[in-house]
Amino acid sequence: MLNTLQKPETWQQSMLSSVIAITEAADGDFSKIDRLVAASRDPHSTDLTIEHLARSPHSRIALTNRRSLGSIDLNALHQLPSDTLGYYYADYMLRHQLQHLVTSPATTEAEFIDNHMRETHDIWHVVTGSSIDMHGEIQLQAFCVAQLQLSRFWMALMTKNLLKASIYNIEAADGYLTALTTGWMMGKAAQPLFGVDWLSMWEMPLDRVRASLDIKLINN
Amino acid sequence: MLNTLQKPETWQQSMLSSVIAITEAADGDFSKIDRLVAASRDPHSTDLTIEHLARSPHSRIALTNRRSLGSIDLNALHQLPSDTLGYYYADYMLRHQLQHLVTSPATTEAEFIDNHMRETHDIWHVVTGSSIDMHGEIQLQAFCVAQLQLSRFWMALMTKNLLKASIYNIEAADGYLTALTTGWMMGKAAQPLFGVDWLSMWEMPLDRVRASLDIKLINN
Repeated sequence: MLNTLQKPETWQQSMLSSVIAITEAADGDFSKIDRLVAASRDPHSTDLTIEHLARSPHSRIALTNRRSLGSIDLNALHQLPSDTLGYYYADYMLRHQLQHLVTSPATTEAEFIDNHMRETHDIWHVVTGSSIDMHGEIQLQAFCVAQLQLSRFWMALMTKNLLKASIYNIEAADGYLTALTTGWMMGKAAQPLFGVDWLSMWEMPLDRVRASLDIKLINN
Repeated sequence: MLNTLQKPETWQQSMLSSVIAITEAADGDFSKIDRLVAASRDPHSTDLTIEHLARSPHSRIALTNRRSLGSIDLNALHQLPSDTLGYYYADYMLRHQLQHLVTSPATTEAEFIDNHMRETHDIWHVVTGSSIDMHGEIQLQAFCVAQLQLSRFWMALMTKNLLKASIYNIEAADGYLTALTTGWMMGKAAQPLFGVDWLSMWEMPLDRVRASLDIKLINN
């Protein structure tokens, strides 16, 4: 859209086009999200994100080992006691008919960040108490911006929801900004979730998982 | 940009174009802000904003009377004791070489909302402790969204700053979101500032003005 015949798009123009496309699309259009992921992957901000993450020991180890969670038997997890992280995760996934995403091995840190954020996205939903609706998504997006700090993707994804509200659905603005504020404050207060060894925590009560990671739910 | 030869732009498309234009412009490009003001003035959201404002008695009276502040002698205000609202306002304006804006009489409620928000913008800066830099602007924009609730203009203006950060200046995102969160919480906690009779408050200490309006400064 911002192309001319003479000049190729800069990545900034390409990113702006991606945000426009996702703003004009229906909520949850994954092809537009993939386009934004690709457009927002500039080396400079990726380096900054890696540098920021590496300040936390367990996130640094995760970036080095680049280990994926692998496949997860949700039905088995669903048999755990009903106060455990494993039960809550399985219950969330089964109730919403979601499948745990298995990612392919990452060869670079940048690729691992993408993979890890995708494969743990629904675990983050559960531990941060972020609902599956748009308020929960915005809360979690703001949480991710607070935690990754320099991620163009999460910042842009969150911003497009505010842009959609300002143009198409102004009545939603109040709820969206309350969700954003909640997620931002929770993300700032919590320990870094990136690289947490979730596989070792399935049997731990969800309350204890939250306490160990300084995740304090905020009720609005 | 979103035009076709066949169909005229809808106001939503026109608003999206305005946000794109202001995102691509330098900070403080007032022609782009005016374009956004015009594009975001749809009757539905204006009605909602009026309805929301009218819930507060002094805002409702202001909407009925549609009285402007008129011209203000900043040098005279600057002679007031140095703890007063008048002194602080004059000092802010003189220090930043700003002139108090005199608006023309408003014939409709919608026009009065525009005028009143413009002519009191710098007073809002002073009473909310919002600095004149981009952090202060974003803090005040979020404050305005919280106070007017259904204003497409303030929501879009604030959002374009997040969009600019996500594309052109990701290092700014952390400070911008801290400012947004601060402004949002202050705006929610404060009494409605729309229609406050500032002219009667020049000689009051700024601390007392803030206390009377439930404005609690948040230090980050």
